[in-house]
Amino acid sequence: MIDFYNDDSLSIHTDLYQINMTETYWRDNFHNRKAVFEVYFRKLPFGNGYAIFAGLEKVIQFLKEFHFTETDLSYLREQGYEEDFLKYLKNMRFTGTVKAMKEGEMVFPNEPLLRIEAPIAEAQLIETPILNIVNYQTLIATKASRIRQIIGDDVALEFGTRRAQEMEAAIWGTRAAYIGGFDATSNVRAGKLFGIPIAGTHAHSMVQAYQDEYTAFKKYAESHKNCTFLVDTYDVLRSGVPNAIKVAKEMGDKINFQSIRIDSGDLAYLSKQARKMLDAAGYTNTKISASSDLDEYTIMNLKTQGAKIDIWGIGTKLITAYDQPALGAVYKIVAIENENGEMKDTIKISANPEKVTTPGLKRVYRIINKGNNKSEGDYIALDYENPQEEEPLKMFHPVHTYISKFVTNFEARELHHTIFENGKLVYEMPHLEEIRSFARENLELLWDEYKRTLHPEQYPVDLSQACWDNKMQKIEEVKTKVAKMKIN
Amino acid sequence: MIDFYNDDSLSIHTDLYQINMTETYWRDNFHNRKAVFEVYFRKLPFGNGYAIFAGLEKVIQFLKEFHFTETDLSYLREQGYEEDFLKYLKNMRFTGTVKAMKEGEMVFPNEPLLRIEAPIAEAQLIETPILNIVNYQTLIATKASRIRQIIGDDVALEFGTRRAQEMEAAIWGTRAAYIGGFDATSNVRAGKLFGIPIAGTHAHSMVQAYQDEYTAFKKYAESHKNCTFLVDTYDVLRSGVPNAIKVAKEMGDKINFQSIRIDSGDLAYLSKQARKMLDAAGYTNTKISASSDLDEYTIMNLKTQGAKIDIWGIGTKLITAYDQPALGAVYKIVAIENENGEMKDTIKISANPEKVTTPGLKRVYRIINKGNNKSEGDYIALDYENPQEEEPLKMFHPVHTYISKFVTNFEARELHHTIFENGKLVYEMPHLEEIRSFARENLELLWDEYKRTLHPEQYPVDLSQACWDNKMQKIEEVKTKVAKMKIN
Repeated sequence: MIDFYNDDSLSIHTDLYQINMTETYWRDNFHNRKAVFEVYFRKLPFGNGYAIFAGLEKVIQFLKEFHFTETDLSYLREQGYEEDFLKYLKNMRFTGTVKAMKEGEMVFPNEPLLRIEAPIAEAQLIETPILNIVNYQTLIATKASRIRQIIGDDVALEFGTRRAQEMEAAIWGTRAAYIGGFDATSNVRAGKLFGIPIAGTHAHSMVQAYQDEYTAFKKYAESHKNCTFLVDTYDVLRSGVPNAIKVAKEMGDKINFQSIRIDSGDLAYLSKQARKMLDAAGYTNTKISASSDLDEYTIMNLKTQGAKIDIWGIGTKLITAYDQPALGAVYKIVAIENENGEMKDTIKISANPEKVTTPGLKRVYRIINKGNNKSEGDYIALDYENPQEEEPLKMFHPVHTYISKFVTNFEARELHHTIFENGKLVYEMPHLEEIRSFARENLELLWDEYKRTLHPEQYPVDLSQACWDNKMQKIEEVKTKVAKMKIN
Repeated sequence: MIDFYNDDSLSIHTDLYQINMTETYWRDNFHNRKAVFEVYFRKLPFGNGYAIFAGLEKVIQFLKEFHFTETDLSYLREQGYEEDFLKYLKNMRFTGTVKAMKEGEMVFPNEPLLRIEAPIAEAQLIETPILNIVNYQTLIATKASRIRQIIGDDVALEFGTRRAQEMEAAIWGTRAAYIGGFDATSNVRAGKLFGIPIAGTHAHSMVQAYQDEYTAFKKYAESHKNCTFLVDTYDVLRSGVPNAIKVAKEMGDKINFQSIRIDSGDLAYLSKQARKMLDAAGYTNTKISASSDLDEYTIMNLKTQGAKIDIWGIGTKLITAYDQPALGAVYKIVAIENENGEMKDTIKISANPEKVTTPGLKRVYRIINKGNNKSEGDYIALDYENPQEEEPLKMFHPVHTYISKFVTNFEARELHHTIFENGKLVYEMPHLEEIRSFARENLELLWDEYKRTLHPEQYPVDLSQACWDNKMQKIEEVKTKVAKMKIN
């Protein structure tokens, strides 16, 4: 039987190679060299036109608490690490500077979601947990936002806990779904921890337990003012809806007959028929809620068929991001301090062109057209540049460079916020409700063409000329070096 | 900023409807009626021929610790639940009896993985967390076992933490992968918590940090006896492998040049060329390890192309079960105590035939042919039956009933073990290594035809005649009742 340690720590929730590299750096007295790493993804998930950044709250918690505990060090000792190195680890805290997008920000491929500047040993050790957090939460916030685009003003409920990939996914996934635009969750613990509204009624098992649907509905109504009846245990139209109406009539004002829920069968047909039955009985305000392996595609299709569904309960397909269950954000070094204390840009070359990194310290700007308050695209510039001072601003595609435009009358809004400064938390985390509102309102900056669920237009994420030139120069340098290597 | 509560509890890691039903049962004095629920899935994941059950360890922990904490109750109070009901919840502990498959057991559709007999209120509240645990862990153990079928005796490393769906998935997914046949993990915390071997070397960032591949390899070798060099930061064959060999020669006996790792590019071509270069330099024992979005399909294809890969690092596709990220196990009531204290079977009908439940208390037997020590199939019987006493035993397909056979000279091995008896833990959890060995050896009971990765034969999971008759009778009873309802 596993006893979880009282001092179980996330500092060793990392890949072993991070610790091995740290050891090399430390033995070589290289460990305090300042390094800059960026977190970014290369491709939008689900074919969506944008992603919604989430995970910052947990990243902050992790960095604040970062330290190796006694049992961490004991374990590493058993693995053969030596005392001098363990002593170094024991005293390590996070002392770096972190810039990041706000949670709820809409984000795009290849732009740094977080930028970490820290002694290389620290920067390296925190890589794995940061990616573990940001990859999943951003994925789910994006999926939720995508579903929200389809359902308009309908109610969206997160119902996925039983199918989530373990318990933290259920909890943090629900929070991400709420940021992305969901209205409530069935997970009571998520409600308690994050203040997310909770929703739920009864299951088929209650109808089975009473061995009679009418009795079950009646018992439920006698113990709950607000009633949603699950009507598909035996037969929706012959049994479920008639029993729900019967109980509602008997209970009269003693209950609010809020809704019925259909969890199987043909949701389009059943909802339309159920709507007629409810209306005929005078329950025109009673809503119809549906669930059953729903995702944005099925919902879109049900809506085009005129399904009378007001409330969507979405489980598996949301909480696991079923059609693409991983985001693939990476954490790449872009600069390192040399022996003279100067920062030098670094690059990684790859046979896969999209895996070549973009060297140097960078900032991300959203170029907002002041005339219509819509975004012209995102603009990645080197740290020292100030695009606000350039007018007209040339924006060009970083691969197909002939695609370009000049922008005037714009605001270059910087998207990074300083979160930690030399190890000190300087950012005040907004309330979850604020994050959720920001995510919703911020999407107004995008033309609808970028928000289409299927085949959206590609939103421009451009490099500044200086950033692009720097990248090309570094590629050339490495290629020259490798070519020489072959000659030797 | 979220402060996690000191008494954060998994008892409310459940769907709100469980609490609402509990309230109904309690107000109706129905809450202590004994109910029997079963956990099962309807369809094997990934088109595999079997699944590997995992999650029991965490289910046991959860049930042992099940109770509502002060902050749970405060939160429920804020949600409007009344004091008398909260007092009832406060004193609730799990008092039921649980039977379950052993972890590592090979399991099949529609057979109960767990059987829970408990007062209905308790049985209901624990549904969601049990499914959350069992669904994910069983999924990953199965995926890992499937990959093991393809790689034979090669080494399999779990590398998925950064892409896992939050942190518990990384940890418990790794444990499940180990049960399913993986050899080690990169996650240091998983090593600490579960005693799983850990593996890892260095990343591209180290090569970039030193701005020179040779220097980076040399520094690593000077600080680590066992060396694996990652050779694809710039160019595998022109730079990476030559630098690795150069450093290995310089270091001589001071290091074990265990392997090189290739993380991008064409793994078949690169591994074959690298193998030649290593062999030519005399490093015939140095292994080649590969990673880069691998799964069982890519590995199978690389092997048919003669790739010279000895060690497989598998991340995203394993830890998220990428091609099917949810298992879909359900938790269904099969019997309930009536007002006279007698157990009555229950059924749920559905328009989807596979969603109709099988009523009654059941046991699962594996029918093992004593002649060849291979399994003839699994046999689900009612609680009172003893298939060992029937010879010949008739086994027939539960849907296509004409498919049948008579089995003689068999052992009917019961697959359920008693875990909790009236709330008391009576099961001693085996060590993880034992579970892993059991999972491997137990697969010997299956003919290879059931273990094929693509289009395996379907393994028989049959109902006893009594179990089948009982189900048909219950379906008839419900249909008659619903038909009468329509007449009214």
